Order: sequence, then C-alpha cells, then structure tokens
Amino acid sequence: MTFTSIILRLELDHRMAALGDAIDVITASGGDITSMDMVRPGRDKSVCDITIHVTDTAETAVLDAVKLYPGLRLIHVSDRTFLMHLGGKISIQPTVPIKNRDDLSRVYTPGVARICTAIRNNPDSAYTLTIKRNTVAIITDGTAVLGLGDIGPSAALPVMEGKAMLFKQMAGVDAFPICLDTKDPNEIVDIVKKISPVFGGINLEDIGAPRCFEIERRLAEELDIPVLHDDQHGTSIVVAAGLLNALKVVGKRLEDIRVVVNGIGAAGGSICRMLLSMGVRRLVPVDRDGAIVHGDRYANPMWQWLAEQPQVERKSGTLREVLAGADVFIGVSRGGVLHADDIRQMSPDPVVFALANPVPEIEPAEARPLARVLATGRSDYPNQINNALVFPGIFRGALDCRARRINDRMKLAAAQAIAGVVSDHELNRDYIIPGVFNERVVPRLRRAVIEAAIETGEARRIPPDFRNGSTG
Amino acid sequence: MTFTSIILRLELDHRMAALGDAIDVITASGGDITSMDMVRPGRDKSVCDITIHVTDTAETAVLDAVKLYPGLRLIHVSDRTFLMHLGGKISIQPTVPIKNRDDLSRVYTPGVARICTAIRNNPDSAYTLTIKRNTVAIITDGTAVLGLGDIGPSAALPVMEGKAMLFKQMAGVDAFPICLDTKDPNEIVDIVKKISPVFGGINLEDIGAPRCFEIERRLAEELDIPVLHDDQHGTSIVVAAGLLNALKVVGKRLEDIRVVVNGIGAAGGSICRMLLSMGVRRLVPVDRDGAIVHGDRYANPMWQWLAEQPQVERKSGTLREVLAGADVFIGVSRGGVLHADDIRQMSPDPVVFALANPVPEIEPAEARPLARVLATGRSDYPNQINNALVFPGIFRGALDCRARRINDRMKLAAAQAIAGVVSDHELNRDYIIPGVFNERVVPRLRRAVIEAAIETGEARRIPPDFRNGSTG
Repeated sequence: MTFTSIILRLELDHRMAALGDAIDVITASGGDITSMDMVRPGRDKSVCDITIHVTDTAETAVLDAVKLYPGLRLIHVSDRTFLMHLGGKISIQPTVPIKNRDDLSRVYTPGVARICTAIRNNPDSAYTLTIKRNTVAIITDGTAVLGLGDIGPSAALPVMEGKAMLFKQMAGVDAFPICLDTKDPNEIVDIVKKISPVFGGINLEDIGAPRCFEIERRLAEELDIPVLHDDQHGTSIVVAAGLLNALKVVGKRLEDIRVVVNGIGAAGGSICRMLLSMGVRRLVPVDRDGAIVHGDRYANPMWQWLAEQPQVERKSGTLREVLAGADVFIGVSRGGVLHADDIRQMSPDPVVFALANPVPEIEPAEARPLARVLATGRSDYPNQINNALVFPGIFRGALDCRARRINDRMKLAAAQAIAGVVSDHELNRDYIIPGVFNERVVPRLRRAVIEAAIETGEARRIPPDFRNGSTG
Repeated sequence: MTFTSIILRLELDHRMAALGDAIDVITASGGDITSMDMVRPGRDKSVCDITIHVTDTAETAVLDAVKLYPGLRLIHVSDRTFLMHLGGKISIQPTVPIKNRDDLSRVYTPGVARICTAIRNNPDSAYTLTIKRNTVAIITDGTAVLGLGDIGPSAALPVMEGKAMLFKQMAGVDAFPICLDTKDPNEIVDIVKKISPVFGGINLEDIGAPRCFEIERRLAEELDIPVLHDDQHGTSIVVAAGLLNALKVVGKRLEDIRVVVNGIGAAGGSICRMLLSMGVRRLVPVDRDGAIVHGDRYANPMWQWLAEQPQVERKSGTLREVLAGADVFIGVSRGGVLHADDIRQMSPDPVVFALANPVPEIEPAEARPLARVLATGRSDYPNQINNALVFPGIFRGALDCRARRINDRMKLAAAQAIAGVVSDHELNRDYIIPGVFNERVVPRLRRAVIEAAIETGEARRIPPDFRNGSTG
C-alpha cells in the first residue's frame, strides 16, 4: 500500500457547504487530513487548501466524493511528492561567498592559477585542494531502477538525486548523479574512467545484473578510487548485519546454518558471496528455475561462479523443496513466491528476510507468527533492511582515509559495525538492525571501515583521529 | 604582477620587539597588512596572526626580513588562497531536509517511483521534476587552462569549481565540473552526449583550438540542449559589448571601421565570426606568422574559413604592418607583441583591447595615453573584459526558456544587452563595460536572450514573465 500526500484546493459555497462538511466528506472516503490553510476567506465563498494523506487507491474515491458534494468545487489537486521534486532535489552551492574582486581573484583568475600549478606538480594535492576530497559520483544507466526495471537514464534521475540527498545529510558526502545514455558495459567502464578525475569515489546504482558485476569489477581494478555498486554491496552488507544480529536472537552460528537465498541478481549474488566470506558452509542459491546446483554449468557468470563453490549444495529442487530444513531464508526476488507452509517446513526458529520491493516475498502479517525473526524492506514494519544504512558511512570512511578500494575486509567490518550499533540489551526479534536515522551508524561505520582499510593496506591517508595512537 | 594573501603567525619576544616593530618590518619590505589577530597574548611572549597582501616577488623579501629581525620568530606561513581551496569550493546540498520517514518516503523509495514513472511516460517532465531544469555541466579536458596551457583534467578542476561558484552566485544556475581524461574530439563528443541526460546545458571550457570548434559544433548539432564554449563565445560576446560602447565613445560605426584581431585561437576565431555577423566590413585576422590573407589556403580550419570571407583583407604582413590605419586592435594572444609605435600608426581615436592573460599585449600604462579607449582582462584597470559577465546570464536565459541552442541572434542580443547596461550618461572612455558584480547585467541578459530565443523559434518554454503580453 503506497501512501501519497495531496493538496486539494477547494472553493466552498457557504450557502450549501461549511468547512466541517468538507472535512467529513474527505475523511469518510478515506482521506487523512494533515493540514488546512484558509487561502481566500470570503463572505459568500471561501477558498482553502486541505492537505491529505491517502493511499493510491483511496485517492480517486476522495476526489470523486469531493467533486460530487454540493457546495464544494475542486479547483486544483497538487501532489506533495511532485511539489518536492519541482526543479530537482539537490543544488550546488559555493563553500565561500565571492563578496568582491579580492575574493574573485582568489577563487578564480588569477589566484586560482597557483592552485592549478600546485596540482599539476603534485597530483595527489587534488585531494586537498579540490572537491575530489569529498565527492562521489552516483552512476546509473537506468536499467534496474527500484521495482520499475529498465526506465532509462532520465527517468532514473530522481532516485539518484534522492541518493545524493542522503549522502549529504547522513554523512556529509557530496554526491552528484550521472545518468548514462548507454547500456554497453565497455562504454560504461570507459566513460566512468574518463570522468573520474573530479571524483574521490564511484557509487554504481541500478545497473542490471549480470552486467553490473563485470562493470564494477573492471572499474575497481582500473581506477585508483573506490568503486561500489550499492545494489550489490549496500544490500549484502546490511543483510549481513541483520543476519549477524538475527543469529544472536535465535542462538545459532553462521558455520552451522543452512541458508537459502532466493533471487540471484545483483543483490542476491552479492549476498551469497558475502555469506560465503563470512563462513556460511551450507548455501542454496535459488532463482526462477530452482536451485543453482553445485557442479552444473550456467551461462550467467555469477551463477556459474556459485555452482563452483564447495559450500553450495548439490541438490536441485524448487524453492519450496530446498527450503525444507533451512535455517534462514533471504529473498531478493519478487512478491508472492514464499508461503506460510514453506516457513513451517524450515528449521525451528526460522529467520526470514523477505526483501523484495515493493511487494515482499510474503506478506509480513502472514510471516510474522511463523518466523522467529522477520525482516523486510518495508518502513512500516520492524527490522527494515535499508541500504541507506551503508552507502553514506562506507564512503565517508573510504574518502577520509583515501582508500584505493573498498575490499572484502572493509565490507565485513561495515556489516559488523552496523550490527554492533544494536547493543545486547537492545537486541530482540523486532530490533536487529538500526533505523536509518540512527546517528550512531555513520561514525561507527566510518571508524570500522577506516580501521579495516589501514589494516589491509588500502588507506593512503591516516585521518587525524587515527594518528599518534589516538582513538578519536 | 600577481598579488597573494598570506597569513604570518609570529611569536614576539617582548624584550626585543614590539608589535609596532613587526608592522614596520613587514611594510618596509613590501607587505600590505590587511588584518591582525592576537592569538596568544602573554607577558613575555605573544603570538599573533598578521594577514598581508603582497606580490609574488615581494613575498620572499617580507619573509626574509621577518626571519632576520631580532625578537620575531616566524612560526608558520599560510596562504589564504590555498586555505580557501581546502576541500574544494563547491558543495552539493539537498533542497529540502529529510526530517523523518515521511520525507524519506517522498524523496526516495517508495514515493520517488511515481516521479520516475511520470518522466518515463513524458520525458519532457524531466525539466520540471529534476535538476535538468537548472543544471549546466562545465566540461573541460584541461588542454587550454588560463595562461598555463595543457595541464590536464585534475589540475584544471579548481578553475571549473570557480566557474561553478560564479554560475550560482551570479545567476542561480547549478553547475557541476566534469574534467575529462581524454583529448580525443570524438571521445569528448561521445562522452558528453552520453552524460547529457542530467543536464539542461553544456558549458565547454578551456578546450584548445582548433579541436574546440569541431567539438562545440558537433555537440550543438547532436544534443537538444544548449552548448556553449565559453572561451569562444563568452569572450566574443563581451568583446562585442565593449566594442559597441567603445565605438559610441569614438563616434565611429561598425560598418566603417577596420579591425585587427591578433591571435586566432578559440577566442580570436570566435571574435572574428562575431564581428563579421555584426557587420564589420574590413577585418584583418593575424596570428604568429602574420596576417591571414583572403584567398590563401590554411590547414587550420578556422583560419581557412576566415580566408574565404570577403570582409577579410587580401593584404599580407606582420602585425605592425597591418595595424597601420586600423581603427580597432583586439588582442587575444600574448604579452609584449604590441608596442606604442604600433598604436601611433593606427587611425585617430584608436580603440585597443589588449586581452592576453596574464600579461596583456601591451602594458596598460604604456597604452593608455595613446588609445582613445583601452580595455584589458585586468581587474586593476578600467574596462575589464571578463567572460563572467556572459556565461551566468546567458545560461540563465537559455534554461528558463528551455532553448534548444544558443544561436547567433541570441549571442548578439547578449552583447547588446551587456552593452546596454552602461547608460548613455554613464558611458565614457573608462567605462565601456559593466563590472562583474553589477546586478543589472544578469536580468537584462536573461531577458534579451529569451526574447531572441522566442523570436528565432529556439524557445521550447515561455517563462511566466513572458506570457500574456506581460513584460515581467
């Protein structure tokens, strides 16, 4: 159920309808009034703006009811979501004002020439003297956007702008959207390399599998700045964090559990890799045609890689069949593929992460009585698995220590740090993962990522709060 | 002469030196004190920060004098220009704060999906619902930066950041720098096309001639958003504006004058084209090997084009030779190529624009008694010809009317608008062009550009202040 916020501009003819009538009509047809403004009061007629919160489905009913009511005239309907998007959601601001010629001669010609020369003589000083210090490119080709699929670069831009907002608000990272009008992996790699001088990091976003694996791999190898595909690793890191805590709740160990992962695309493939690197010994990746079987051959390179891993089971079967006796179900697929009976066949204290967006693999209300720990991508249920817990802090850390890449140790450290935000006395079946607005996440995540980067030799700068044995 | 601003942190030993001594030492050796802060006062010793304005050449003398003076200890020298550049000069800000889950669900998932769908169904709505409405890409390959030449994309970034600051501060335009790690014209055109979905306009910057002509031409043709190479047209538009007013001062007409343009690169070639389109009938383009001669053949495509124009003279010769009898000299070349005797040989009331940067073709002090009207690129002399008068307002206008391109009529209108900011009673030999901080420039420029765009059919949107016969 998707809610939306709309603003109705109504004219009331006082001979026939009072404001109270308008309120009753709206409420009765499913609208939840959140605010009201008298725009133009009058003796015979008045105009007012009424903001209402309403489900997509109830919206039509409310508008119809208002239009039919004698004495009410619907002048205009504005959508609050649309209003927030007018002209875009980010802007570029100078860090200092240019108040006079003196300022101008420092930030522009002729003073800026000395800065250019300094960078030409010492290219690393770009990290000190330019936005490279703090700026990440958000790169998409628009082929795998939300639940909408391949909608192209222009239509993908609002998501990328939203991401840029979160980067700045959560972690102070400057992020700029680049939406590419090409789907060719070679072209994408080439373009990103050639625009990279400005950036300190690259966040790949909403690029479809399996092209995304190759694109990320090549860019991470060929660039000397960190490259992360959020749909892969943002998801797998927060899933791992949730799982670490969920296992504490159910009292099981990573090495002992049997995990089914449904949906082996960008997220699912990455989750599998993460679980294996964390020590899971029994893994069953499942996609549309059933389980991916150890030893079989697949055209999809990620599936092929999984089929070569010893921890992947040899048994084939449908999702239902392989779920029998599983400890953990992780779904990054689509709605309706998981049923109550499937959960009943899992091991005692089943852990269910039904993360498909917008409709989870199983309705939370249905799964809740059956799963010991349940997590979804939904904000209206406990345990929301949200990538926004990862990408701001992980890039904050990578930028601050000028890591050349975000390696597996850093990703694992990130997962552990996020999990660790939930203290032992806070941990329970309905709180295995911090909320996206939890202010402890970014600093802990940053610290863990920097420590891991320093330990693994990726850090090219030791931030001030890590020097001289200081613990910041 | 380049000035810089440095901050000296000094320790004063009161037994030997007082603050007044420090001031005298600094001033005597060429430093101009602009501010002073007592950082750590003490009974025997004090520490203070003294900000001084000093030429590059005097800087060493000042530091040496301070170091030698008994009782003064130089603790540290900071460069104010460097300090302003730390971490870059622009940042990306959300236009609205994300205060809670409600906000998050509108600017990000799931609410943003409706916006994506709206754009997919109607691609033009990207201009309403995303940053495309207001955002220009500043694109360079770092091959022709200021007076430094080919310094590469990383070293060029501080200039591009400075430009972005000006775009926002002068005209509210969001501008983001893209520094390309390639010099190949085909690659540059291809990359710009493929990153264009996010942008409402493209500002090419510091790309060397003659590649810049082809790159701009192709991009303007193949994209449906305006493309402008500022080094070409920013310069030629402001030169044209200055010339229109200079001719009023000397009482001559465009159609009657003989103009010498020295330096046929990006700026010079564009100035020549502009002058011809404005009605100049006698034009002498000159480069390193002398005048470009009508009817000769040249490998450089811009030179070749000029050699085919009927208004270009048939006579060959050195700069000195062709200047005899010229009414106007416009230099966009390098320092020292124009001499007092050359100006003496020009027609009465010569107009001299010596715009080479950082050293003009002739020292202003030397030219001033000889030229009726003198303009340079220098901020410490009257009549500064500065592209910053053009690019903010011209893109503000183009974005507001969603012009498909910035055509010749719009450029001419821009020149006339800038010239028109100087009223007839303000106009004199020392004020032919408004200053960059003159607030009347951008609104007038915007208006003129939109009117020209509407008249020539380039406008795809009529801004509210141009509708219903309103004059805004």
